Amino acid sequence: LSSMRRVQCCALKVEAKPLFNVGSKFQLDDVIEAQQFDKDTLSAIFEVAREMEKIEKNSPGSQILKGYLMATLFYEPSTRTRLSFESAMKRLGGEVLTTENAREFSSAAKGETLEDTIRTVEGYSDIIVMRHFESGAARRAAATANIPVINAGDGPGQHPTQGLLDMYTIQREIGKLDGIKVALVGDLAYGRTVRSLAYLLAKFQDVKFYFVSPDVVKMKDDIKDYLSSKGVEWEESADLMDVASKCDVLYQTRIQRERFGERTDLYEAARGKYIVDQGVLSVMQKHAVVMHPFPRLDEISVEVDTDPRAAYFRQAKNGLYVRMAILKLLLLGW
Amino acid sequence: LSSMRRVQCCALKVEAKPLFNVGSKFQLDDVIEAQQFDKDTLSAIFEVAREMEKIEKNSPGSQILKGYLMATLFYEPSTRTRLSFESAMKRLGGEVLTTENAREFSSAAKGETLEDTIRTVEGYSDIIVMRHFESGAARRAAATANIPVINAGDGPGQHPTQGLLDMYTIQREIGKLDGIKVALVGDLAYGRTVRSLAYLLAKFQDVKFYFVSPDVVKMKDDIKDYLSSKGVEWEESADLMDVASKCDVLYQTRIQRERFGERTDLYEAARGKYIVDQGVLSVMQKHAVVMHPFPRLDEISVEVDTDPRAAYFRQAKNGLYVRMAILKLLLLGW
Amino acid sequence: LSSMRRVQCCALKVEAKPLFNVGSKFQLDDVIEAQQFDKDTLSAIFEVAREMEKIEKNSPGSQILKGYLMATLFYEPSTRTRLSFESAMKRLGGEVLTTENAREFSSAAKGETLEDTIRTVEGYSDIIVMRHFESGAARRAAATANIPVINAGDGPGQHPTQGLLDMYTIQREIGKLDGIKVALVGDLAYGRTVRSLAYLLAKFQDVKFYFVSPDVVKMKDDIKDYLSSKGVEWEESADLMDVASKCDVLYQTRIQRERFGERTDLYEAARGKYIVDQGVLSVMQKHAVVMHPFPRLDEISVEVDTDPRAAYFRQAKNGLYVRMAILKLLLLGW
Repeated sequence: LSSMRRVQCCALKVEAKPLFNVGSKFQLDDVIEAQQFDKDTLSAIFEVAREMEKIEKNSPGSQILKGYLMATLFYEPSTRTRLSFESAMKRLGGEVLTTENAREFSSAAKGETLEDTIRTVEGYSDIIVMRHFESGAARRAAATANIPVINAGDGPGQHPTQGLLDMYTIQREIGKLDGIKVALVGDLAYGRTVRSLAYLLAKFQDVKFYFVSPDVVKMKDDIKDYLSSKGVEWEESADLMDVASKCDVLYQTRIQRERFGERTDLYEAARGKYIVDQGVLSVMQKHAVVMHPFPRLDEISVEVDTDPRAAYFRQAKNGLYVRMAILKLLLLGW
Repeated sequence: LSSMRRVQCCALKVEAKPLFNVGSKFQLDDVIEAQQFDKDTLSAIFEVAREMEKIEKNSPGSQILKGYLMATLFYEPSTRTRLSFESAMKRLGGEVLTTENAREFSSAAKGETLEDTIRTVEGYSDIIVMRHFESGAARRAAATANIPVINAGDGPGQHPTQGLLDMYTIQREIGKLDGIKVALVGDLAYGRTVRSLAYLLAKFQDVKFYFVSPDVVKMKDDIKDYLSSKGVEWEESADLMDVASKCDVLYQTRIQRERFGERTDLYEAARGKYIVDQGVLSVMQKHAVVMHPFPRLDEISVEVDTDPRAAYFRQAKNGLYVRMAILKLLLLGW
Repeated sequence: LSSMRRVQCCALKVEAKPLFNVGSKFQLDDVIEAQQFDKDTLSAIFEVAREMEKIEKNSPGSQILKGYLMATLFYEPSTRTRLSFESAMKRLGGEVLTTENAREFSSAAKGETLEDTIRTVEGYSDIIVMRHFESGAARRAAATANIPVINAGDGPGQHPTQGLLDMYTIQREIGKLDGIKVALVGDLAYGRTVRSLAYLLAKFQDVKFYFVSPDVVKMKDDIKDYLSSKGVEWEESADLMDVASKCDVLYQTRIQRERFGERTDLYEAARGKYIVDQGVLSVMQKHAVVMHPFPRLDEISVEVDTDPRAAYFRQAKNGLYVRMAILKLLLLGW
């Protein structure tokens, strides 16, 4: 949303009384990066997401976004994310314009700037959900558009709704965000999700991180320094069993083959190192959960799926609720 | 639909009184293969399909599936089948999430299992229509999903709604399924549709088959043995004119070039051998019909199109009614 | 729309009284080429388009096309045009079936004729919007279909809704179509839009054209002869500044690289020759406007965008209103 149009999100009250109070106003114009959310905003979004769980379970569903049109402008394919946003919009009675492969097909191929594309698409829709291959593209789109823009991932940059759904899942599963112990396992160097999660959890009290990863994909210094500067405790460990026995959340990630280029030997060594299986489960606490951003290969054994502590399918579903909440807040406000 | 959730399809009665009675319950959980349907179920589906003809002709159309969301998960493209299902859903007021090329685009490319994809997509939708390149994929999807799954073709395996629409067309055009004479012409070795049709018609009384095909694509022994074991009469013939003069249904199919590899000479010889043209029409009975599953090349001459016995465009349209019926039965029951 | 079904467009009156009167009937069956519209029809379409501006601005929007289904059958990708039509349909409460790449995916790849595809798709929808790579394809589709067909571009042939939106934009911006001076700049040899515009404006009184283009892409003789035969004044000029100071509309176009093949040197020379920038703006009249069919590269400098005379984003938006009007007229009539 450009500065040309500042929505008074509080102006449109669709509920008889406000569900919560973060002062006299609650403004959400665009969703660009995980860091933009403070604790109060997160809490507000999660409260709306809880409402959305109820709405989604009801039949025939809500019509609060009837007449609204969302454009999903995807410059690289991401079926999971796209379907999640489109389902969220349709569950609320809204409509969708889809482009699954804007990079190859659109006028972008003829050299049109992102800004020109955005100014055209905003004429056809009420909100833009954009995935792009370049870091910073979402910010450029939001600076151009007079309608809200949601970043659905911009290259190695941000994927803020994934961060939101991860946080929402921890809140829902563990019941709190302060005072929790979180193990981040797997690809910590390139994984966009674990980096967002580190930034977001750093806003809460007494959080402790464990980093468990093969040497070639260790957590980078910028995050470590950031956490230290915020007084957040963290330690690296090579002992997954020890960490599993202590943490509240074990957040496993996929080792991304594409990061290793020709070195398939390094990839094979890295990917097999830390597998979450029945053995790992057996040392975890009863209230603890296993999470994963998907897609998974074999870094979590299928045998884990039936354990109630396997939270990753619920986590995927929470993506729907969080995106419903974001769409509602951006289009209708409180 | 997995065993975790058995829909009592009879529980939701959207009509004032049941349209027919197949005992106290009518359960339809998934649509996986043509053979799953017994005569009573076929009759029930066709009765609903007839209702759908009326609904489709009305304006502004039905809203009985309003609030329901169908995911079309296509791992290989099939525009005709996809549009037919999506039209069926929308004609009943339902909504659609589309993936036209799930194989290339989705997390499948990163190595995700079909089961993980299904468990994600079922969180976003109420019913899944899946096309896949592997035989048996639909059965695996249905075993995983807690929502209904419809097989829209799985590789060389099954394409049950095509079988249903073929049967429905014969019923509508000829007025009965017992006691009919059906000529299957063209590619009988690889054609999925003619094989399904043989299995389905074998459930009825006094059906007689004629097989007319080039030697290289003759009907395989498994079907012949199956028909014989069920007491169904069949004969092979090289004389299309003779067969045309005797049959009630002449079901023509396309010779598929892709089956012949480098041997284009064999393909060219095979494809020109049995053409349905004005000459063939002239010996056919007045009440008989010509059918074809589409796409056609020149195995039916364009001059045949205007003859009232050319049933293939009506057949394509019947696909819409049958799919509307299936969606209604799976989502609402009787 | 084939001759089999002639819609009495006047039969369905959705407004209490007719908005205008072009005789006792107003028939619009298909939209195939720009030349099909006479002055009265253009005026009628523009009147409806003005109504659509109001409808689009209202929330939650119109439902006049509720229950109608539009199939977008695109044999070559054109994201901008597709989204514009789909937005138009959804803004009026209608639904959409999409094929973004019918050429590669559909049964067309197996050799099906366009006619067979159209006869199938018309069974699933109420109106077809088709883009095709072959000139004349839209006319063939319309001759086959029993439902309305809109040509969304057929190869080097026609793209009539672009012509309509250009004319509507001139009417809206300048207030009249008679007596105007129009500069066509850039690729006048291959540009489909400038050729349509020449044909359409030739229907009005006292129009004067200026052609400003690099030698390799000069306006072709057929258009020049046509204009002369209709008594329309035109002149060629190499002096963009002089022309800019005299015209009411400066219609800039992109030099299309794909027309130059290997000769990138010619392309580079041509594309840099006539740029619309602050200097050109400074000599233009106050009431004059700059238009462009998009996508643009650098033939209009970004600095021009903020000038009120930069009409090209409003022009793109007008595409929505004109397409809403066309859909309404074809499906509901007056």
